[in-house]
Formats: sequence, C-alpha cells, structure tokens
Amino acid sequence: MEKEPLLQLRVFDLNCWAIRYLSKLRQERVQMIADTLSQEGYDLVLLQEVWSETDYRTLKQRLSACYPSSHYFRSGVIGSGLCVFSKYPILDTFLYQYSLNGYPYMLQHGDWFCGKSVGLLVLKIQEIVFNIYVTHLHAEYCREKDAYLPHRVVQAWELGQFIQHTSKAADVVLLGGDLNMHPEDVGIRLLRGWTGLRDSFTDAERFEGCEDGCTLVPDNYFTNKKELQPFPLGIRIDYILYKGQSNFAVKCDRLVTTTGKAPGKSIPYSDHEAVIATLYVKRHGEAKAPNSNTVEPALVDIMNEARTEVRVGLHAAQRQRYSSGRMAILALLLLLLQAVMGLSSLVGWASPQPFPKFSFSVLGSLAVLVLLVSGVLHIFHAIEVKVLQGTEDQMRLALQSLQDRLSTK
Amino acid sequence: MEKEPLLQLRVFDLNCWAIRYLSKLRQERVQMIADTLSQEGYDLVLLQEVWSETDYRTLKQRLSACYPSSHYFRSGVIGSGLCVFSKYPILDTFLYQYSLNGYPYMLQHGDWFCGKSVGLLVLKIQEIVFNIYVTHLHAEYCREKDAYLPHRVVQAWELGQFIQHTSKAADVVLLGGDLNMHPEDVGIRLLRGWTGLRDSFTDAERFEGCEDGCTLVPDNYFTNKKELQPFPLGIRIDYILYKGQSNFAVKCDRLVTTTGKAPGKSIPYSDHEAVIATLYVKRHGEAKAPNSNTVEPALVDIMNEARTEVRVGLHAAQRQRYSSGRMAILALLLLLLQAVMGLSSLVGWASPQPFPKFSFSVLGSLAVLVLLVSGVLHIFHAIEVKVLQGTEDQMRLALQSLQDRLSTK
Repeated sequence: MEKEPLLQLRVFDLNCWAIRYLSKLRQERVQMIADTLSQEGYDLVLLQEVWSETDYRTLKQRLSACYPSSHYFRSGVIGSGLCVFSKYPILDTFLYQYSLNGYPYMLQHGDWFCGKSVGLLVLKIQEIVFNIYVTHLHAEYCREKDAYLPHRVVQAWELGQFIQHTSKAADVVLLGGDLNMHPEDVGIRLLRGWTGLRDSFTDAERFEGCEDGCTLVPDNYFTNKKELQPFPLGIRIDYILYKGQSNFAVKCDRLVTTTGKAPGKSIPYSDHEAVIATLYVKRHGEAKAPNSNTVEPALVDIMNEARTEVRVGLHAAQRQRYSSGRMAILALLLLLLQAVMGLSSLVGWASPQPFPKFSFSVLGSLAVLVLLVSGVLHIFHAIEVKVLQGTEDQMRLALQSLQDRLSTK
Repeated sequence: MEKEPLLQLRVFDLNCWAIRYLSKLRQERVQMIADTLSQEGYDLVLLQEVWSETDYRTLKQRLSACYPSSHYFRSGVIGSGLCVFSKYPILDTFLYQYSLNGYPYMLQHGDWFCGKSVGLLVLKIQEIVFNIYVTHLHAEYCREKDAYLPHRVVQAWELGQFIQHTSKAADVVLLGGDLNMHPEDVGIRLLRGWTGLRDSFTDAERFEGCEDGCTLVPDNYFTNKKELQPFPLGIRIDYILYKGQSNFAVKCDRLVTTTGKAPGKSIPYSDHEAVIATLYVKRHGEAKAPNSNTVEPALVDIMNEARTEVRVGLHAAQRQRYSSGRMAILALLLLLLQAVMGLSSLVGWASPQPFPKFSFSVLGSLAVLVLLVSGVLHIFHAIEVKVLQGTEDQMRLALQSLQDRLSTK
C-alpha cells in the first residue's frame, strides 16, 4: 500500500425505514435523505427498506443530476426494499432471493413478504471492475429466543456463497447493508470468514460516530428504547464490508456514522444510523488469484457452529411439518366421516339428521378451513426442511474442502 | 485447436422421469440406469427428475465405486430432481432457484412444487477449473397456447445471468439438462446468445442417434404419442452446451443419443432419450478474457423478443392480481355484511334470524373460503408481477449495455 491511491470511493449506506403508512415522518425523511445525497455527491449510495416505489421514484428524480445511474431491486410481495444510486454507470445487475426468509403467517413481522434478497451491481471505474452487493437480512425480533436464527444463518451462508461465486472477475468487492447481526454473531463471522471481506469499522484509519460504531442507538428519536435496554450503547448491525482482489487493494481511510440525528437537522434520517465510508483503491505489485484468501483454521469452528444452528432449525422445521401434516390428516378424516354420515342419512341407512343441520355445517366448514390452513403450512414447512437439509449438505461439502486445503498447507 | 487435447470428458445427461407412484417401471429403470452408468464409467453424469431421495440413494450406493463424488440438489416441496455423479471430486456446489416457476394451484402440472433450479458444481481436473451446471426448466404443456412461456423465458434469462456471473473464474463451462425448449425457441436463443454457450448437437464432429438429435421421440415406449403428433420426428429439448474460456477451448468430438430404447434392452431408460457427449479440452495459445464473447447484433433482436414475452406475462399477471384482489374484497364485504346482520339481529335491531341459520352459516363459510383462497392468489400474483417487472428492468439495462458495446465496436 505504498503507492498513490488510484481511486477514492465514498460510499453511503442506510436502512431508510420507509414503510408506507407505518414509518413516522416518512416523506420528510425521504426528502432529507435526497437533500443530503445531492449535497454530498457520494460515489455510491446503498439503501434498504425503501419499500415504496413512489419513494424510489422521488429519490431518483431528485438525484438524477448527481447520480445518473440507479436501480431498484424488485422481489417478494412488497419488494426487496433495496435500491442503489451511482455516479458511475451500472453495467449489469442480478438478484438472488434467499431461500428462507421467515414465515408468511408471521404477519406482524412481515419479513416473508419482502422477499429478502441480495442485489448485485457491476460497475467499471477507471477500468477497475467493482462488484457491489446490497442486502438486508431477516430481522431479529427477540435475541433471547430468536426463532429466525437458522433462517438468518442460511441467509448469511447464501450471501457468502453468492459473493464468492459471482465475484471472481471483480477487482474490488463491496457489500453494504443491514445484516441484522451483531459483530460477534455466528452469521457474520461465517460470512466474513468465508468471503475474506474486511469490516470498514475495525479497519478504518479514522472513525467518527456512535461509540462502537453502533447503528441502532438509544439516542435516535425513532428507535424502540425498550428493545435496546440490554445494550446501553446500542447495537451495530449495518455494515460496509470490502476486499480487493487480483492486483488491487482496498483501504478504509475514514468511517463515519450519524449519531442519532441527521447533521444540522432536528430529526434523524431513519431509525438506523447512516454508515459512510471513504475507501481508497490502490494497485498491488503482484496479482493475487481471486478468492485466494488465507484459510483460517478458526473458520472450521465457525462453520461447525453455523451447521449446528442449521440443524437446530431443521429439527424445529421437521416438527412443524409433522404437526401440520397430522392436523391436515385429522381434518380430512373428520370431513370424510361427515361425508359418510351425510350420505348414509340421505340414503336412509341412518336416522335423518343425526346432528342438527347447523352444527353439522359449521363443523364441516371448520374442517375445510383447518384442512386448507394446515395443508398450506405443511407445504411451507416441507420447503423449509428441504432448504435446511440442502444448506447442511452444502456446508458439509464446503467444510470438507476447507479441511483438505488446511491439511495440504 | 492444433495441439493435442489435454483432456477427454465423457458426459451423460438424462431426464430420468422417476416420479414415485406415477412413472412406469421406475425401479427397474433406475436399476438399468445404474447398470449402464457403472459399465460405461462416464466422467460426469447429470440427471434430472430423480424426485425421490430413495432413488438417489440407490444410485449413489450402486455408483460409489465408479463415481466417488455425487450431489443431490434439494429445493421446493418435492425436491429439484437434480443430481450429479462425478468421477472427480466436487469442490463446491451452489443452487439458484428460479424466481418464477408456474402456479401452486396448477396441481396437475406440479412444476411449482419442484422448486425448479439450476445447480452449480465446481470441479478441478488436471488443474483446469470446470463450472458444471445442471438444470430443468418449466415444462411446456401446450405449445399452441403456452401459458408458461413468460415463466420459461424468465428462467432462461436467470439461467444465463447465473452462468455469466458465476463462471468468470472457470476454464470450461458446461450446462446439461432438460430445458423444455425447442432449438429455435426464444429462450434458448437468448440463453445461448447471452452466454456464448455452444450446442453439442450442432457442433459435434460425429453424431449418432435420433434424427435431428431429438430427445423426446414417438418411438419411445413411454412417450405420449398424441402430444408428439405435430412433430413426427420428435422434439429436441435436452441439451449439453459448453464453452471454453481463458486459454482453453472445448470441442465436441462425438454426440450420441439413445433411440427410443436403452441399448440392448427392451425398454428405454426414461421417456426422454439420454444425451452422451465426448468433449475434448485443449489449451489455446493466447488467453481470452472471461466472457469476452463476440457480441452478435442479432442478440439485440432476441432480447427484444424475450422482453416482449416477459411483458405479455406481466399483463396477464397484473390482470390475475387484480381479479383475485377484487374477489378477496367482495368476499370481505360479504362477511362484513353478514357480521352486521348477525349483530343487529342479536341486539334486536332487526327481526331475529332474517335468514335461515343454515344458509347464513353456509354463506359465511363460503365467504371465508373465498377470502382465503383469493387472498393467497393475490399474494402469489403480486410476487409474479414483481419478478416480471424486475426481469424486464434487468433486461432493459442489459440491452443498453449491449447496444453500447455494439456501438463502440
């Protein structure tokens, strides 16, 4: 890193919390974000939770002069919420939707409806190929009893695999987003260990912002203070991660987070803090093969830890698949019994109307309803089981390759 | 291609038609397939429609001596049906599930339940990196009025994008599978044009097998003769496609298909014919940048044709989203009306029981049922709309990049 930097890249990342009808002061905040982005003229802006396409269009219109290229990633029922604005032309995009993402019946959480994904953009700046990833993983609603942990671990694994497999021709890899994981969580250790991505917070030469780099802080007007009680400083769940490949190296010169308020304003941009990194890209003397990261023996332990979480999820999913299947069979049996009773009373084998007509019809409707709901649940949990088994398989194979590489070192 | 070949690769591809309880003589055929694969000792075996994990385990057990490495790709409710057997160690795997894949309510077709996907394997043979893809796209049930065409075009596009983005470090790219597209269909022209993959049938130096390379032929005992009536020779929907990258070139020396019967047996392996390619990998003098295929101006027309299909699908999906939404609202209004009537008769505002109790409860149950079903359909078609819009966006951007590349040529 002796040579002069080739390129400076200023990246802005923010979970915008822009849920129509639900998020407070949404429109004002979107305008505030647009103001700041126009004034600051970053090279790259990675946004999450822009759920409404109207908000995206507002931003696009306001930012078109400063950021001529932009993309909105569509998935799920509501949309992935991911969008990007770039000073440089976006050459290609690709979207990978995570195989597991919560449950459709958990309406109060709603993650399933967003079709959580990772979006990829390819940029070329001064002949340097950048693979930029933006993502938002499943939220953590209860840290003590986190039912979504296996899903988030699967997402972290798929994110890592997607980055590894798609970034081999890139000179610089950059990931920004709300990972919904604390820095010490197994998912982020797996992601970082597997991809070799560096954390801009720990690597930055200069840092300004919330203590410990937190991005969900009690000082923010919009955050739920009760949820943050166990963490007086707040938590760090929004990240900018990066690595240089081939003969390029990346350094984080400066990392800034907002501190509960948008600079010079009375309210924050969002319930999350924005993360702003200034990166320098330099050219190495020697070319490095893509993904030739040194394999850390600790990665074996991390992968085993992640596999354990996946297995815990698998057992739970198998139990739920079984219960919903059993319920569907019981409802079907009840319906069949009713059909036999109805028929036999019709053909005169039994006394007419052995039960009052009303109770009989209510019971029948209830059975149909239970059959439908438990049938759908059974299908859903069968898919969950398949994905968790598949992930476990993939992880086992990866672990084997890893151990082979370690033993031949 | 003057130099001696570095490597010979014999690849076997077959859609096995192994659906539990439905496919005829399934177990006998699985045993026959295992016999042939053990005798022939191919380098790589790519199978589709191995829906039952028991069949996979049977094959794995029978083939473990000859093919020490294997992988079964799990997705959907039933499973993707994709599996591979390899003479060489599989270093890594990754699965991409297509965003659109038919409709869950089309139970008689069942594609939705399979979670159709593309599986990736990474192999290293004599220090040459192979990216092997195996896939099975949505079936075509009625060529004249193919309701699934937009879904298949989206799948072909995602397959092409997945291959392009994940294969940049590969020396050899190989795709095998049942693409459910005739050679002149827009989806396969898009896939081949976008990825630069070559067709082993048109490129093979020697070919033996069904006329025109057909893989679904009337001579096969298991095929539906009525469906094949418009095609007296049969149709070609199973492919082995390939390309060499960096400083490697691939040549197809020989392509063979079975011809309605398994060699030396009285019945065929499946309702599809097997496709067997003998490929030679040679080293070029000069290194070629990955994905530096010559851009054909015809690709612009193909992409526009594909975009038109996606737009047709989008309009249909928007119509279905609207109808199901309207139906859900009507059912909800009926329920509200019933609730008001019920309540008013309870508090004595109206005459008690303005309708017979039985009809009232049947009507209520019906409304709940319609609300549930149309609500689920609405959600499903909303996802379909999002994916089709997203694909259209991606295609527009890709077309723009393509035109830029063509104009700077």
